[in-house]
Amino acid sequence: MARVVVDVMLKSEILDPQGEAVLGALPRLGVNDVSSVRIGKRVEIEFDENAQNVEEQSRVIADQLLANPVIENFSVTVERSPIEGA
Amino acid sequence: MARVVVDVMLKSEILDPQGEAVLGALPRLGVNDVSSVRIGKRVEIEFDENAQNVEEQSRVIADQLLANPVIENFSVTVERSPIEGA
Repeated sequence: MARVVVDVMLKSEILDPQGEAVLGALPRLGVNDVSSVRIGKRVEIEFDENAQNVEEQSRVIADQLLANPVIENFSVTVERSPIEGA
Repeated sequence: MARVVVDVMLKSEILDPQGEAVLGALPRLGVNDVSSVRIGKRVEIEFDENAQNVEEQSRVIADQLLANPVIENFSVTVERSPIEGA
């Protein structure tokens, strides 16, 4: 079984209000040395045992379904390849 | 400057409707060999140059602010330690 992780983050030039909110709350926890917080999505995709081209298929999923290419970047990481498990 | 990544995912026994929705949409993209999709949060925290105990501080942030321990697990990864940058 192959597992692929797709990380989707807002582009650096796009304001991230959710991250700003967390940043603003940190002093209340006693944390004062953080300069930036950015919050994005982590998507874990499990493929069937005999799936082919899992990285390529994951890029299609990320590009067409998970990320908005106008404001977001994504990265695809194959954590377990189907060959390893064979 | 240290960068820490906190990944927050729903526990495996908790239903993930957002992931289910993505899974249900995959056949329309021609992807038929995915067995599971889980969607969580990826939080990137940038610490100041001379910050101490960044992993420990990140665990406090994750535990008290980012994750709901009843339904979510988190993992903390230090991507660049402050020593490396020195």
